Amino acid sequence: MNISLRNAAFFLLALSHFGIAAVASAQTAPKPEAIVIEEQGSFSAGGKAVTTPGTFNNKAPTSQGQSIHGDHLYAFFQIPQNPRPLPIVMLHGAFQSGRSWETTPDGREGFQTIFLRRGFPVYVVDQPRRGRAGNSTVAAAIEPTRYDQLFFDQFRIGVWPKYYDNVQFDRDPNTLTQFLTSVTPNTGPYDPGVISHAMSAVLDRTGPAILFTHSQGGGPGWLTAIKNPNVKGIVAFEPGSGFIFPDGEVPDSMPSAAGTLPAEGVPVQEFEKLTRIPIVIYYGDNFPVEPTSERGQDNWRVRLAMAKLWVAAINKHGGDAKLVHLPEIGIRGNTHFLFSDLNNIEIADQVSKFLAEQKLD
Amino acid sequence: MNISLRNAAFFLLALSHFGIAAVASAQTAPKPEAIVIEEQGSFSAGGKAVTTPGTFNNKAPTSQGQSIHGDHLYAFFQIPQNPRPLPIVMLHGAFQSGRSWETTPDGREGFQTIFLRRGFPVYVVDQPRRGRAGNSTVAAAIEPTRYDQLFFDQFRIGVWPKYYDNVQFDRDPNTLTQFLTSVTPNTGPYDPGVISHAMSAVLDRTGPAILFTHSQGGGPGWLTAIKNPNVKGIVAFEPGSGFIFPDGEVPDSMPSAAGTLPAEGVPVQEFEKLTRIPIVIYYGDNFPVEPTSERGQDNWRVRLAMAKLWVAAINKHGGDAKLVHLPEIGIRGNTHFLFSDLNNIEIADQVSKFLAEQKLD
Repeated sequence: MNISLRNAAFFLLALSHFGIAAVASAQTAPKPEAIVIEEQGSFSAGGKAVTTPGTFNNKAPTSQGQSIHGDHLYAFFQIPQNPRPLPIVMLHGAFQSGRSWETTPDGREGFQTIFLRRGFPVYVVDQPRRGRAGNSTVAAAIEPTRYDQLFFDQFRIGVWPKYYDNVQFDRDPNTLTQFLTSVTPNTGPYDPGVISHAMSAVLDRTGPAILFTHSQGGGPGWLTAIKNPNVKGIVAFEPGSGFIFPDGEVPDSMPSAAGTLPAEGVPVQEFEKLTRIPIVIYYGDNFPVEPTSERGQDNWRVRLAMAKLWVAAINKHGGDAKLVHLPEIGIRGNTHFLFSDLNNIEIADQVSKFLAEQKLD
Repeated sequence: MNISLRNAAFFLLALSHFGIAAVASAQTAPKPEAIVIEEQGSFSAGGKAVTTPGTFNNKAPTSQGQSIHGDHLYAFFQIPQNPRPLPIVMLHGAFQSGRSWETTPDGREGFQTIFLRRGFPVYVVDQPRRGRAGNSTVAAAIEPTRYDQLFFDQFRIGVWPKYYDNVQFDRDPNTLTQFLTSVTPNTGPYDPGVISHAMSAVLDRTGPAILFTHSQGGGPGWLTAIKNPNVKGIVAFEPGSGFIFPDGEVPDSMPSAAGTLPAEGVPVQEFEKLTRIPIVIYYGDNFPVEPTSERGQDNWRVRLAMAKLWVAAINKHGGDAKLVHLPEIGIRGNTHFLFSDLNNIEIADQVSKFLAEQKLD
């Protein structure tokens, strides 16, 4: 069966049969080249086992003498033919899994496949206590919290129910459904130390590599680079929390309509490990200049402001960090998910340019 | 950098640096051919949105007027160049995610990549309320239950702490760690109706397809084939629950050292939808012939017995089902995870033979 026919069949069937949560938009782009993969697979890394004292009774098992493995991460990797020397390890943000980097909500290729096509080995992670790495050594309660509209605002798709006029997000309702179904809960308490421990174990496996982080993943990303010298560069998309500064140089917390953003102190020797690698941070569009009562926007006003202080601190200590606020270089309409927006090829080109400038490709 | 060098570096680094949960065994097999992929990506299917009445307040959000999307599944797909006509959709079992079908615990290729290499488009699913499809419309509590030793027995690796002499499972401790870290919890109540609803939405998208199920996935697999005529054949690996019979023909429940296995009734018209497609069921080794107090073994004695009644019922109603107890055809030592055992190529060959006989390839 011809692939194009198959796809046409998918979409026709989908459009005629599906319920609310089943279909990505049809693609109009020409069929891309095939991808040639040398090796692919998955593994866990990091984590620990905890054991209840006693002797296991095979015939009447209780917790006595039994262990649980938890707090590891899950990684899926693909190595293309004739790979570039440095792999890319991709760490998602809050409420997300590795799916963040896969197909975009409107059905196009995401950064997993785009950077694979550009010759990089790609490792896509589910952090500990999330997604396929769900086993946690600490209990959690999962509530079906109704957050769709809050996310629409907070991820800067618009001000619910209105899309921003310039937003790089497809208006098909199925696109929004695919986006909202990429949300997946924590299965244990969020812990940047646990995450960076497991990430460091991935970097032990990959060898020297580039780290991409998104949003809440930014903080564990800095910690991973502090823990493991195999991190040779960081591309951070809209880091949202976990901004660390040298003890004694920690800026004031920043209040916003979405709550107060704290900065955190670490020993200067730890901080300065981040000055040895190139770092670039990207933020998208529709940030307010002045404080606003619009929660979804104001949340990002303080994060952008904190990131600017953070970049200045890195550079003051001899580092090489850069913050790119995309509207300032003429790239408009990006949401919090720059890498899956309608212009994600343009964003990938920005990243490729950075990697080339820094000789990381 | 040469791939073989890269892998050598992975494993040396891993062996020297990793904690307990970080490394797969080194492979000794010759480097396989590259895989040529036309298209890959992921999507959600099925599920629903539930909404709290009221109006969303962007400036002070509460649950009022907000929705949650949940109960969908997640699927990752790859379509090889020159694909065979029927894709394969793979549904995992209890405590597992799509990772079941990926890399084996000892680091070799699993059925995802093996059947991709054999020319099939492959769709690997995380069922609703599991893995990357974690959002549930119903709350759940997640306890870090200590089950490693119970799983060792129940998945027939051995009788903890002793491996079965003939078991097709690598003895490297890292292999067991990779196996135990593939465990991931339910993030909402287990519901075969929810799962088969979402699976049916995948089948709407794929068109005619073959369904592979494992263990607890067996039950939702039968329900999916009843709901969607696009299921053209089923390969069930060690179905463990959800055995459905025509109302009035339901066999007695079967007690065992691991609890009582019930059979379930459905209207005969529903049941007979399963008589229109070829079905094969595989079970592995180390089943007891007589009842035993060894819980991990006795659990499977009754499941095998029930599956034999089930196959007889399908065939009595004019169907085409077959049960293969692998030791009876000379294939020994298989665990509950046949498709990732050391002899998984031999198991894949059995499956390929079935698909060819049934003209499903």
